[in-house]
Amino acid sequence: MPDAPADVDALIELMARLPGLGPRSARRAVLHLLSRRGQLMAPLAETMARVARTVHDCTRCGNIATGEICDICADPARATGELCVVEDVADLWAMERGQAFKGRYHVLGGTLSALDAVGPDDLGIPRLVARLSEEGIVEVILALDATVDGQTTAHYIADAIERAASAGEPVSVTTLARGVPVGGELDYLDEGTIQAALRARRRF
Amino acid sequence: MPDAPADVDALIELMARLPGLGPRSARRAVLHLLSRRGQLMAPLAETMARVARTVHDCTRCGNIATGEICDICADPARATGELCVVEDVADLWAMERGQAFKGRYHVLGGTLSALDAVGPDDLGIPRLVARLSEEGIVEVILALDATVDGQTTAHYIADAIERAASAGEPVSVTTLARGVPVGGELDYLDEGTIQAALRARRRF
Repeated sequence: MPDAPADVDALIELMARLPGLGPRSARRAVLHLLSRRGQLMAPLAETMARVARTVHDCTRCGNIATGEICDICADPARATGELCVVEDVADLWAMERGQAFKGRYHVLGGTLSALDAVGPDDLGIPRLVARLSEEGIVEVILALDATVDGQTTAHYIADAIERAASAGEPVSVTTLARGVPVGGELDYLDEGTIQAALRARRRF
Repeated sequence: MPDAPADVDALIELMARLPGLGPRSARRAVLHLLSRRGQLMAPLAETMARVARTVHDCTRCGNIATGEICDICADPARATGELCVVEDVADLWAMERGQAFKGRYHVLGGTLSALDAVGPDDLGIPRLVARLSEEGIVEVILALDATVDGQTTAHYIADAIERAASAGEPVSVTTLARGVPVGGELDYLDEGTIQAALRARRRF
């Protein structure tokens, strides 16, 4: 902004990199912060600095953690022998909101992508395979996005697990069901979902 | 979020107070920050803390400043005898983007509002009147919103200046023109703007 202090310009530029904020809304957000320096801006800066300093990736599953391992890995009640593979922490949170999964997670941090040169090692897939015997996993649930990249990654992981399991204990690999979402209207659903829901139809 | 570190929850809650961000988009923004802790989150926290610590209100005009007075008040080239009254720093930035005004500003920090118990003293109107003789102001431009509160405030300020000026030098009080915005289509304009533009019509 003309005649704004350089730090204010820098702050607007950094805020504009957040998803959902463009240059104009970042300016609005910064003006809002400037008019609430004591009540909002200072605590926000402090909390953000503390999170940046203390939060890191769980060495076991890739979730965010403040200790060596995350709260889920540290909870013995979650050693159910089930391991849910998700793309990122956002998806882990979505699964947790569902409150239906009681086991542990493995966060890939992305999907396989030839275009972006993301290979199995970048996603910690060897580490995932190693966890199976280490933690006595009997079922791996692939909770990946129903996109091309997500499904390519799911197939790759299923193959890797099969190869590893042929040597030791058998591990069952499952994936989330496809079907009509709760509250969904047929008229608004794509053909792929309709077809999948029909193929997977169940006794009423 | 379930099982998220407490600081991360606190950060989401604080981010959700920004204009344009709700609870869901604040969560997305924080996840984005968490995946870019070094490149984005740490610099953002640091810049925000520095701005919160160093930026304050210009003691003369109410604009944001890092020194005692802001860059505009400190610039001798802007002592043109014209004073532009704006509601807040956002409006000052809007005027500056116009690059047409070369004088100094007075930032009210709000508008008169009986409902919110905002009176003339809260807006620094006595301070504005005092500046007129101190700085040899010959014209006050009221650049307030064309809303009821904005216009009530404009009338109050014009009266206060008239009362003060009756004792000393005369000060002319002006306001931004009303009319058709540049690029505006008549079909989309409200009746008030059409009426104002017709009344203020000029030779072609």
